[in-house]
Amino acid sequence: MRWKITIAYDGTDFHGWQKQIGFRTVQQDLEKAISPLVTEGANVAVNGSGRTDAGVHAHGQIAHFDLDRDMTPHQLRRAINGNLPSDDVRVMHAETVAPDFDARRDAVSKEYRYRIWNAEIMDPSERRTRAHVTKPLDLPAIHAAARLFIGTHDFAAFSANPLREVESTVRTVHSIEIFSDGPAVEFRVTGNGFLYKMVRSISGFLIAVGIGREKPEAVDEIIASKIRTARVESAVPQGLTLWRVFY
Amino acid sequence: MRWKITIAYDGTDFHGWQKQIGFRTVQQDLEKAISPLVTEGANVAVNGSGRTDAGVHAHGQIAHFDLDRDMTPHQLRRAINGNLPSDDVRVMHAETVAPDFDARRDAVSKEYRYRIWNAEIMDPSERRTRAHVTKPLDLPAIHAAARLFIGTHDFAAFSANPLREVESTVRTVHSIEIFSDGPAVEFRVTGNGFLYKMVRSISGFLIAVGIGREKPEAVDEIIASKIRTARVESAVPQGLTLWRVFY
Repeated sequence: MRWKITIAYDGTDFHGWQKQIGFRTVQQDLEKAISPLVTEGANVAVNGSGRTDAGVHAHGQIAHFDLDRDMTPHQLRRAINGNLPSDDVRVMHAETVAPDFDARRDAVSKEYRYRIWNAEIMDPSERRTRAHVTKPLDLPAIHAAARLFIGTHDFAAFSANPLREVESTVRTVHSIEIFSDGPAVEFRVTGNGFLYKMVRSISGFLIAVGIGREKPEAVDEIIASKIRTARVESAVPQGLTLWRVFY
Repeated sequence: MRWKITIAYDGTDFHGWQKQIGFRTVQQDLEKAISPLVTEGANVAVNGSGRTDAGVHAHGQIAHFDLDRDMTPHQLRRAINGNLPSDDVRVMHAETVAPDFDARRDAVSKEYRYRIWNAEIMDPSERRTRAHVTKPLDLPAIHAAARLFIGTHDFAAFSANPLREVESTVRTVHSIEIFSDGPAVEFRVTGNGFLYKMVRSISGFLIAVGIGREKPEAVDEIIASKIRTARVESAVPQGLTLWRVFY
C-alpha cells in the first residue's frame, strides 16, 4: 500500500528534511517512526516532495512511502505520531494513493510563506518563525519588485548552486502576494517548482528593495544576468515555511 | 530616575519571573542586564507587576526600577536588550515615571490570555504557546460557565495555595471573552488582580466544561465552597500569556 502523508514541523531543531548522518532531520525521524510498523524489519524509505533547509519550517510538507500492513489512516497517523521522538514534527493527515504516486515528481506547484517582523525590537514570541527587519519596509516598492518575478524565467541568479540536481534553472512563479498587519509582513510565493534557496533569495531581494538598498527594476536586470552575485542575499531560514504542495 | 518598562518573553525556557538561586528567571536576566548601567556597581532591583510561573509567557509584563543615569528611553531599551543573554526576552518599551510609581501596587487591572489548540493532532508550530485539547470543545457551554466567573467573588477554590502572600482571596473578574478560529481557541480574562494559579484554574475549569466533564452551573457551587478540590485542575502553563497590565 502506498501512503501519502502531510507533515508539519517546526524546523528550529532540525538540520533540514534530508537524511544526514550525525544530524537530526525530519526524513530520518519519520523513517525511524515508521520502521516499527514494517513487517520483517525492512527499511522504510520516506520520499518527500522536496528538501527543506536547516531551520525552515513546514505546514504541509508531503511525502510518500510503502507499507505492507492493513491500517486505517487514523491508525497510521496515531502510530507514527506516537513513535516520533518530539512534538516538533507531526503527521497531520494520511491517505492511501495509487502505487505510482510520487510526492516529488507529481507535485504540480508549491506555496511557500516568508514571514518578517518589521519593528525595531523583535517580539520574543515571533523570533522562531520570522526574520527580523528593523528598517521600515516600503511595501509599494516590494509590490513593484514582486510583480517582476512573476512568470517563467531563468532563476539561476536567484538560487544558490542552481544546477545542483536539476537540469534547467527555468521555473514559473505563479504569484507573490504581500500581506502586512502592523509589524507582521508575509510574502506568499507560489510556483511550479523552486531551485535551491530560490524562495529565500527572492525574499532577501524583496527585503533589500523594501529597505531601499535596491530598486524594484533591478529584478529584471539580475534575472537577465543569470549569475548569482552578492547583491542577492538569502533571507534567514527561520522566516520560511513550506506551506502547501499541490498535486 | 524611576523607569517603567514593558517586557515580552517566551516563558518556555524560564523558571518563571521571580529570582531563584540556580534557575534562569526573567527578573534575574533583567537585573543582570541592567546592572552594568548602574554607577558604582550597586545592585539593581527590578520590581514586576506580579510573578508569572515557569513556562508562562508575557506580552506586556510591567516592571519598575531606579537608575541614576541620564539616558533616553531609546538608549535604555537598547542597552538592556543588548545585555540580555537571549532573544527570548526583550524590553519592548521604556518610560520614566514618578518616583513613587510601583509596578505591583499601582496596577489596577490585568489581562491574561489562555490559548488552546482544539484538534486531534497538535500543530507543531503552536505547541509552545497553546494547550492541546483533543476532544471538541462545546463553546456555548464554555460561554455559560465563563459568565458565572464574572464579578466579585472569593476565588479561594480557583487558586492553588490561595493565601500565599495575600490577605484576602476576594477578587473581581471584569470579563472573560472567548474567541475561536478553527482549532485556535482563546480565553481573554481581565480582572483587578489574580490569585496564584487563578487564571490557569479558571481556564482548566472552562476546558473541563467544554469537554463535558463539568456542567457550567458547577462554577457557582465551587466558588461558594471556597475550597480547592481535585475538580479544579490548572491548565498547562504554556497556554498562558500575561497580556497587559493597566495603571
